[in-house]
Amino acid sequence: MKNHLVESWNEGRSTLNGWIAIPSSATAEVMARAGWDSLTIDMQHGLADYQAALGVLTAISTTPTVPLARVPWLDEGIVMRMLDAGCLGIICPMVNSVDEAARFASACRYAPRGSRSYGPVRAATVYGADYWKQANDQVVSLAMIETAEALDQLDAILGVEELSGVYIGPSDLALSLGVAPRFDPDEPKVVEAITHIIKTATAAGKRVGMHTMTPEYAKRMADLGADLVTVGSDLRMLKATAEATVEQWRGLQ
Amino acid sequence: MKNHLVESWNEGRSTLNGWIAIPSSATAEVMARAGWDSLTIDMQHGLADYQAALGVLTAISTTPTVPLARVPWLDEGIVMRMLDAGCLGIICPMVNSVDEAARFASACRYAPRGSRSYGPVRAATVYGADYWKQANDQVVSLAMIETAEALDQLDAILGVEELSGVYIGPSDLALSLGVAPRFDPDEPKVVEAITHIIKTATAAGKRVGMHTMTPEYAKRMADLGADLVTVGSDLRMLKATAEATVEQWRGLQ
Amino acid sequence: MKNHLVESWNEGRSTLNGWIAIPSSATAEVMARAGWDSLTIDMQHGLADYQAALGVLTAISTTPTVPLARVPWLDEGIVMRMLDAGCLGIICPMVNSVDEAARFASACRYAPRGSRSYGPVRAATVYGADYWKQANDQVVSLAMIETAEALDQLDAILGVEELSGVYIGPSDLALSLGVAPRFDPDEPKVVEAITHIIKTATAAGKRVGMHTMTPEYAKRMADLGADLVTVGSDLRMLKATAEATVEQWRGLQ
Amino acid sequence: MKNHLVESWNEGRSTLNGWIAIPSSATAEVMARAGWDSLTIDMQHGLADYQAALGVLTAISTTPTVPLARVPWLDEGIVMRMLDAGCLGIICPMVNSVDEAARFASACRYAPRGSRSYGPVRAATVYGADYWKQANDQVVSLAMIETAEALDQLDAILGVEELSGVYIGPSDLALSLGVAPRFDPDEPKVVEAITHIIKTATAAGKRVGMHTMTPEYAKRMADLGADLVTVGSDLRMLKATAEATVEQWRGLQ
Amino acid sequence: MKNHLVESWNEGRSTLNGWIAIPSSATAEVMARAGWDSLTIDMQHGLADYQAALGVLTAISTTPTVPLARVPWLDEGIVMRMLDAGCLGIICPMVNSVDEAARFASACRYAPRGSRSYGPVRAATVYGADYWKQANDQVVSLAMIETAEALDQLDAILGVEELSGVYIGPSDLALSLGVAPRFDPDEPKVVEAITHIIKTATAAGKRVGMHTMTPEYAKRMADLGADLVTVGSDLRMLKATAEATVEQWRGLQ
Amino acid sequence: MKNHLVESWNEGRSTLNGWIAIPSSATAEVMARAGWDSLTIDMQHGLADYQAALGVLTAISTTPTVPLARVPWLDEGIVMRMLDAGCLGIICPMVNSVDEAARFASACRYAPRGSRSYGPVRAATVYGADYWKQANDQVVSLAMIETAEALDQLDAILGVEELSGVYIGPSDLALSLGVAPRFDPDEPKVVEAITHIIKTATAAGKRVGMHTMTPEYAKRMADLGADLVTVGSDLRMLKATAEATVEQWRGLQ
Repeated sequence: MKNHLVESWNEGRSTLNGWIAIPSSATAEVMARAGWDSLTIDMQHGLADYQAALGVLTAISTTPTVPLARVPWLDEGIVMRMLDAGCLGIICPMVNSVDEAARFASACRYAPRGSRSYGPVRAATVYGADYWKQANDQVVSLAMIETAEALDQLDAILGVEELSGVYIGPSDLALSLGVAPRFDPDEPKVVEAITHIIKTATAAGKRVGMHTMTPEYAKRMADLGADLVTVGSDLRMLKATAEATVEQWRGLQ
Repeated sequence: MKNHLVESWNEGRSTLNGWIAIPSSATAEVMARAGWDSLTIDMQHGLADYQAALGVLTAISTTPTVPLARVPWLDEGIVMRMLDAGCLGIICPMVNSVDEAARFASACRYAPRGSRSYGPVRAATVYGADYWKQANDQVVSLAMIETAEALDQLDAILGVEELSGVYIGPSDLALSLGVAPRFDPDEPKVVEAITHIIKTATAAGKRVGMHTMTPEYAKRMADLGADLVTVGSDLRMLKATAEATVEQWRGLQ
Repeated sequence: MKNHLVESWNEGRSTLNGWIAIPSSATAEVMARAGWDSLTIDMQHGLADYQAALGVLTAISTTPTVPLARVPWLDEGIVMRMLDAGCLGIICPMVNSVDEAARFASACRYAPRGSRSYGPVRAATVYGADYWKQANDQVVSLAMIETAEALDQLDAILGVEELSGVYIGPSDLALSLGVAPRFDPDEPKVVEAITHIIKTATAAGKRVGMHTMTPEYAKRMADLGADLVTVGSDLRMLKATAEATVEQWRGLQ
Repeated sequence: MKNHLVESWNEGRSTLNGWIAIPSSATAEVMARAGWDSLTIDMQHGLADYQAALGVLTAISTTPTVPLARVPWLDEGIVMRMLDAGCLGIICPMVNSVDEAARFASACRYAPRGSRSYGPVRAATVYGADYWKQANDQVVSLAMIETAEALDQLDAILGVEELSGVYIGPSDLALSLGVAPRFDPDEPKVVEAITHIIKTATAAGKRVGMHTMTPEYAKRMADLGADLVTVGSDLRMLKATAEATVEQWRGLQ
Repeated sequence: MKNHLVESWNEGRSTLNGWIAIPSSATAEVMARAGWDSLTIDMQHGLADYQAALGVLTAISTTPTVPLARVPWLDEGIVMRMLDAGCLGIICPMVNSVDEAARFASACRYAPRGSRSYGPVRAATVYGADYWKQANDQVVSLAMIETAEALDQLDAILGVEELSGVYIGPSDLALSLGVAPRFDPDEPKVVEAITHIIKTATAAGKRVGMHTMTPEYAKRMADLGADLVTVGSDLRMLKATAEATVEQWRGLQ
Repeated sequence: MKNHLVESWNEGRSTLNGWIAIPSSATAEVMARAGWDSLTIDMQHGLADYQAALGVLTAISTTPTVPLARVPWLDEGIVMRMLDAGCLGIICPMVNSVDEAARFASACRYAPRGSRSYGPVRAATVYGADYWKQANDQVVSLAMIETAEALDQLDAILGVEELSGVYIGPSDLALSLGVAPRFDPDEPKVVEAITHIIKTATAAGKRVGMHTMTPEYAKRMADLGADLVTVGSDLRMLKATAEATVEQWRGLQ
């Protein structure tokens, strides 16, 4: 078993991450074949819960795309279930303290490096019987830094040894800084915070993921040092394209 | 109860139809809010069967969009079930003879105009208790003309009184004429056949629907006389946009 | 394996049948515990297809209630699937000729009495390995008589040896006779037709089922000779009670 | 976006709430059309989890009925997911302290008034792109007061500024007071506690919801000052009506 | 796109087919990784319908196993849907005449070799955009010979040019010959019929599939000339192993 | 209502528990009929979440098998939901302290013995209206002892009065003790720990459950004093049997 993301990052290449909000293995299979390096099932603001996510993971496994999940909240139960289901990385929202970061990181590691419970039901089927021996090195844990509080605690959070890195949520970060939430922000206060997180995390030897809406902004973030960049989501792409199609037709009348 | 499509057609306006291949009420709700005049659940080449289609119909009912279905095959059971479920029109594939056209049309009409069985379980909930009195006038039946055989029988098929009109499937039509199947065809043989169907059906006082991939081609068809034009499908839009996004990112590296 | 309906009918007792339109095993379990002699999953005008019906059948099997299904149309595939899934009887809509009746009856019987294909996947699990030996005697097939055409062919239809009996659909029968479709009809033309079917079928040694909306009307039908009477449906009961509750509250303001 | 409940309460009118325990969009659509002011998906003692609830919410959105949810437990993850899914209010069980009330209230408000994470995936689709600007004023948070402990802390709980109000669970309240749990209780100890909560909350400028089984009892509660009254549940209505129907039939034999 | 079954058969190797009766992508993924050459979703006597089968197909596509389906009945709609969904072969039950065989074979071929409708929604995603060009040569159609009537018509059925071959259903064949249905039959009358079908089909240049319960019997059939042999089914394996485990425990008490 | 497990244990008989990882009511029905004393739905390392578990519970209720669940984590919400859904016992993973044990035990008992919230939606349907009166005595709570930390706290944990007993997870226990995780362990360090738990718990008057893979090992554990022994799981049985079948076929070539 190899997590291709880790490999790419080790070679200095930023990876492209797709975002799955649609709770359907049918659309997931189409997404998986589009060529993303990884796909993240968003179980916080997306529309799939565990059972639907399981079907999505099977769909992703029809390709070499790396499966990740953003869990709804810092909850050991769902973190471990998504790992057992075959995710090679977890993004955890709203990690605001070193204690939360440590709890999250621990849930992603088997003893003695953490407290993950043994029983990799789908992971062992997909990655082989020795999955458990390699999981601690291959599974990625990314804590979301998206509040002023988390910004304050950044150094401490980055000091959690078993935490792989951080993931930047620009909307909540903006809201927390008193700026209207939007994607691909240009407000100096927000851009500065994002830049600070990327630089600090990279300096601390941690990985950084960043949420964006366009390949251009993603490139900008990769150039700043982001290891993983997300662009858009399946549901947003569908929505935007459908609306543009209808609008184009109306314009022709 | 009013079928807004019929109203628009009576006023000489072509309507824009969206196409649903994804078996998910979550994506259907996004499609329904994009502004199409109607949405057709494709139960032939799309991915939803009855149970999934039911959820899609509920999603469409959150908006004034008119729900239609393309059934998998000429089968009275599924034609009637989709009408009971609230579809205001049915597109039936591969109608190649006047007998088939008559069987299909009859399945869409209550006695004495047809043989539809009474029991509009969801339709009566959504459209009111007197649904059954208006259904015969509001429900649209469109027979697909998509083979050389059907072209030969076109006049006879158009002579079926209770049939509302025809729907052109350009891919199968092309295949049947010995041309490679593709959308928005420009091959003279296929364009000629399409034009012939639109003109003949219109002259016979029947409605015509046409399957296209772009608003431009749809406009061309509407100008030829098509009453309803379909553009793309949810799954194709998602696929194309996802692939374009990945490609754009790769281009920036 | 015993079909308790057959037993009751043989002892001269009419049985009470519930009607399931809701595609949910959760509501089915509640229905099953309410004490009906049998429950029929309505796959024609109800909202469940095969997969949902399977869950409903499991729910019914938590009690001694006898499971039946009304199939969407005369189609051997679904008739046999519902029997394999454990239904002890099938109601088939719109049987209008002796040929249709014979096809339907044959689909419910193993060779040499019919053409049912062997493979009782759930039925053998639930009723035992020797299910197939008893199925031909325990499974009930009821052909719906609900058109003027079927009325004309009644004697011939009743002559089909392997057909267990008929089931009266008063709404379609009314429509077919030019009367507005409604439940528990009092129009002489419809009542007369119903009475004729019950008397003729009984005289021919066949079983008769009848669709009603109230216990009172059901009793009237049982007194006329109906062996099985259906009262209401789960969805109608929910709808009526919810509406009455809201209305009662509004009245108190 | 407007939460019609808030509007009604501001005008001094008590609202009628329906209760959804059945995990089905099919029954939800019937419930939604029955005329309740709001419908609450019960994810604690009802049978739907997130994925099923999503379908129910879509069904409710076919009407102007206001959607609410009772979450299984005080858990930020599910509170925020249900809001993102379009609920305009959350009922949280077993809130026994001011800390719990504050955590709950905070989860229902965006910064700076709370800690709700941004990403209103379905809410923005349904209520518009500016949903997030209005959500803090339109979303209702009701903490359940259902233990002796909570009664003791009532004043402190009511002092939580961002909490909209309380919801009374009479069964657990009774159990906690040493009385057998039942709906529409008449035991003085329980009635007294209920009255105390309604009066105290109203005096503190908070909203009060109350769980009942009959319109009459609901009226009594509204007269005491309850802003929102729940009557029955879909599953109970189905169960009661089915049992009554069978009993009526048995009585006619 | 290559159908590995065709390749193996051309090289003279019999292939091992697994049988899927469980409507779950979770179990299908486990089955797919067990090493079968192909897996057939049984939509006739198994428990999955179209929507569940779609998830099973995705699960199979995580491996090189070839996906097939047995359809519920000779119905063009479902034959074509399963091909569009990615099945590389269809087994059709109860083919008793040359007309039925021809209808079935035609449904599996695009014009001009047949009447399959164009729209390979999942097949083109999985196998590539030129799927349609290769489908006619790669898709396998196997007609079930399982009645005395079909035995009589065997030569004529084998004469249908576009039919790939036949599949032997020993249980129904036995029933039809007046023998108790069971798997791996030894009754001379049945063995003789099976041998006759294998020899005749092979001589006619057609492929032969055979349903068995044990590897030993399957080997016997392969030695007789069967190209594809099915052994057991997922549900039977689970049932047998569970029963054996319980029995073993009881024996230890 | 009677929990047959409690009855058996009181009579000194160890009970056999089956393990359900497959999220399907179809396979659950087969498991339920295999004769296990109880079946546990594994919601931690298995593949079902609440909604799927609900269908599994209905399937189990077609037999006298006692339904249990292992919840994903110590979370009052899911513990209570599974009890409301009809489970007669809960296994809770990773209970490492007396506080955690007390929280878990309390969630399984109604006041005054605990803090379980009232609303036994399915339990009351299945077990009767007086379920709540008997639940405190019939519902079993088993805390998993599977870490070195829990071993240290064993006496304190066993001192929690309302806790019914403990359940031993040998894989995590091994990992925690620095031994490779596997089933039916023979490493002295692990066997010693298991023996210690069984003896200590039994001496403290608590019940003990143990996870094994074979009837032989289960017997060994029962002889040591285990009240409930689990053998294998549905998914493992399917996987092992499928792999063995393919291997056997390959060996015959």
